Amino acid sequence: MIHVVKCGGRVLDDPELLQAFCRDFAALEGPKVLVHGGGALAGRYQKALGIEPVQWEGRRVTDTDTLQVVTMVYAGWCNKQVVALLQAAGCNAVGLSGCDGGVITASRRPPKTLSDGRVVDFGWVGDVKAENVKADFLQMLLDSGCTPVLCAINHDGKGQLLNTNADTVAASVAAALGAALITCFEQPGVLRDRQDPSSVIPSLDKAAYAALKAQGAVADGMIPKLDQAFDALESGAAEVRICHSSALLTGEGTLI
Amino acid sequence: MIHVVKCGGRVLDDPELLQAFCRDFAALEGPKVLVHGGGALAGRYQKALGIEPVQWEGRRVTDTDTLQVVTMVYAGWCNKQVVALLQAAGCNAVGLSGCDGGVITASRRPPKTLSDGRVVDFGWVGDVKAENVKADFLQMLLDSGCTPVLCAINHDGKGQLLNTNADTVAASVAAALGAALITCFEQPGVLRDRQDPSSVIPSLDKAAYAALKAQGAVADGMIPKLDQAFDALESGAAEVRICHSSALLTGEGTLI
Repeated sequence: MIHVVKCGGRVLDDPELLQAFCRDFAALEGPKVLVHGGGALAGRYQKALGIEPVQWEGRRVTDTDTLQVVTMVYAGWCNKQVVALLQAAGCNAVGLSGCDGGVITASRRPPKTLSDGRVVDFGWVGDVKAENVKADFLQMLLDSGCTPVLCAINHDGKGQLLNTNADTVAASVAAALGAALITCFEQPGVLRDRQDPSSVIPSLDKAAYAALKAQGAVADGMIPKLDQAFDALESGAAEVRICHSSALLTGEGTLI
Repeated sequence: MIHVVKCGGRVLDDPELLQAFCRDFAALEGPKVLVHGGGALAGRYQKALGIEPVQWEGRRVTDTDTLQVVTMVYAGWCNKQVVALLQAAGCNAVGLSGCDGGVITASRRPPKTLSDGRVVDFGWVGDVKAENVKADFLQMLLDSGCTPVLCAINHDGKGQLLNTNADTVAASVAAALGAALITCFEQPGVLRDRQDPSSVIPSLDKAAYAALKAQGAVADGMIPKLDQAFDALESGAAEVRICHSSALLTGEGTLI
């Protein structure tokens, strides 16, 4: 069974957490793929360069200058730092963006018209689906003992880079490979009571998820994460686990 | 015969030149590897971030902040932009830094003591040799129809990224693969008269090179380029050609 692990931005922002996470990931047995987010560094560089970060529905609106910054930070610094740490931990990592080997093609998100008639142009933001993942290229790397490490910079196949969402990339890759997806973040799993980290729900089906949403126990950033988890299962992922970044090897967290 | 092509920074600084160069490179027949420099963008980002660029003997002194900038610019923006353009031109490019697949390990350059007793610490600068290139990983990619695209960010194998010289990377890769090296830059080749672009020397051996150096016809940045060309031949490269970036496919330039 292939494991696809998604590592959130908070881990990338903390050198000690990142070292520990990379050691754990290197120790995970069997063929595996890592997908990482970007953390706070892109926002810091934007500020230093006088670019005002603009978000819309949790997505970074990506003009040409911002695309350069996120490509530099995600595909450059974050990706190569993670790969170098994994190599040092004995894992033969290969860092990839979607353009490398044409592994993921994204489609540019069309502008969105709001109910009040205003139009939101996300700029160089792309969307990714499982059918746009070239699974045979990833399989070729896995078969030769390599571990692909993907960031969320992809391309349209016509020479244009696009900024995409790391959770969607991870879900699409897991679905395309029929892999088990492990989504690591800063909480120990899906919580019954958001104030109580010990209230982890060990497993969750669609009916239980709907009930938790109705009660308001699951809200905010957890909703797209869970929607993507169920989508990944429906598109071909073998299983999905959501857990703390320190629980990669323990099997703890919430099984979807 | 494998071709290893080195593309200079000037091409990366000019979107039209870069497009044309990528189209030519995509049209080059047979297995091939591209190695690219970084251009002026890293210096511009350093200035925007308030980092004063420091050079010593033509090498960028690389402190921790500068390493982050050059990794972002070379391994991030430049590498992924070139890969996306090559993919659009029908070339199945895969962008790599030395850490990816552990393809190139560099050793950190030790501080240098000057004749007046001062010590120059280059910081996170590394040196690369042909024996530190994992040729079998490159060969595996070539055999599967991929075209490796290397930037000059490498690692020490212990988790530390290092800033290296793109000409040395290209020469080392060509030597390790027994490949033909084509070094593209902003002149049409080695010139008999540096003021006259039509005075290209069609071929050059070591004796003729020594004579040109003695006459002063070859000087400055051309000397390390030619030293590296002869080193590459002695370390295993099949041939070396130095030419203008627009002459990749024409066979013009200087054959070493």
